[in-house]
Amino acid sequence: MTDGILTADQILSTAQDVLRRYGPAKATVVDVARALGVSHGSVYRHFPSKTALREAVTQRWLDESHTPLGIVMASTAPAPDRLRDWLTALFSAKRKKALDDPELFATYTVLVDEASQVIERHVAGLVDQLEEIISTGVTRGELAADDPAVAARAVLLATRAFHDPAHAAGWSVPGVEDDFAAVCDLILLGLKPR
Amino acid sequence: MTDGILTADQILSTAQDVLRRYGPAKATVVDVARALGVSHGSVYRHFPSKTALREAVTQRWLDESHTPLGIVMASTAPAPDRLRDWLTALFSAKRKKALDDPELFATYTVLVDEASQVIERHVAGLVDQLEEIISTGVTRGELAADDPAVAARAVLLATRAFHDPAHAAGWSVPGVEDDFAAVCDLILLGLKPR
Repeated sequence: MTDGILTADQILSTAQDVLRRYGPAKATVVDVARALGVSHGSVYRHFPSKTALREAVTQRWLDESHTPLGIVMASTAPAPDRLRDWLTALFSAKRKKALDDPELFATYTVLVDEASQVIERHVAGLVDQLEEIISTGVTRGELAADDPAVAARAVLLATRAFHDPAHAAGWSVPGVEDDFAAVCDLILLGLKPR
Repeated sequence: MTDGILTADQILSTAQDVLRRYGPAKATVVDVARALGVSHGSVYRHFPSKTALREAVTQRWLDESHTPLGIVMASTAPAPDRLRDWLTALFSAKRKKALDDPELFATYTVLVDEASQVIERHVAGLVDQLEEIISTGVTRGELAADDPAVAARAVLLATRAFHDPAHAAGWSVPGVEDDFAAVCDLILLGLKPR
């Protein structure tokens, strides 16, 4: 590793491994540098502090959910379908993370709690996407909302049981799909033009 | 205390004090008996095990929210008003507990996590009340829902950010009232007859 050029992405991948192995309480920048076979100065050249590195790892992990959401954002389907698809994609992405690798998910739950600005940006990005879907729907007469920005925030809050890591324990319980569908139905009725 | 007749309610009040003082991890039945000035046998006569005592304390604490909800249930106001009042009463009751005595709230958050059957009964009771409000509203033509039981569950899930202790940290944040109102608006639109 010392021969090549060290990229930010390599550091973030290794930092994730280190965080998983040592836990968020113990993992240090020196551990990351050692795992990469470089000096800790090489890591600090990309990330000026331990906090900056942890935030960048957290950001990258949160942003992984953006790929499936991006597919829905690019769709030209009717707004009610896009809204349901978007909420389903978010729930699926979060649930996949929680169930596929519970240990890493628990690690990130700790990191997210520390990184309030990172999570605020992430949530703001999600609300922006919802607002875009709702606004487009209102323009086309497919949805109704007095204020698409307020409605977008309300939709994200109303589906919190299906994307907030605090509720991950409920995502493998029988009936969770029905609960999710019932909440989506209620939201879509609430946004249906009259 | 040894002179009078020991009631279950006295034991529960003292158990709450003991749990607050020692924390849920350390508090024992012997601590409760000592604080009451009785033998631990006197406590066991009312509650057959430490688990039974902790569950009863938790149940009592959860049921405290029922008084303000009961007032809404007894009201003859139109169903949309009752629904909003009920959600507001639940949010207020939970928030009051979280903000008035954060230490006791944290203690109960641990107890509630342990007592899954107690919480399930509590949630089922809340869903029943919501179903009653929605059913009455449907009968009177004030609300619309294909299945009031499903709608009731969806309403409780959609407002989870405003009654689940996991979200208590957000209940004193500026803007939380607006967020709550926006979610209520969305839900009420979703249940509005067409």
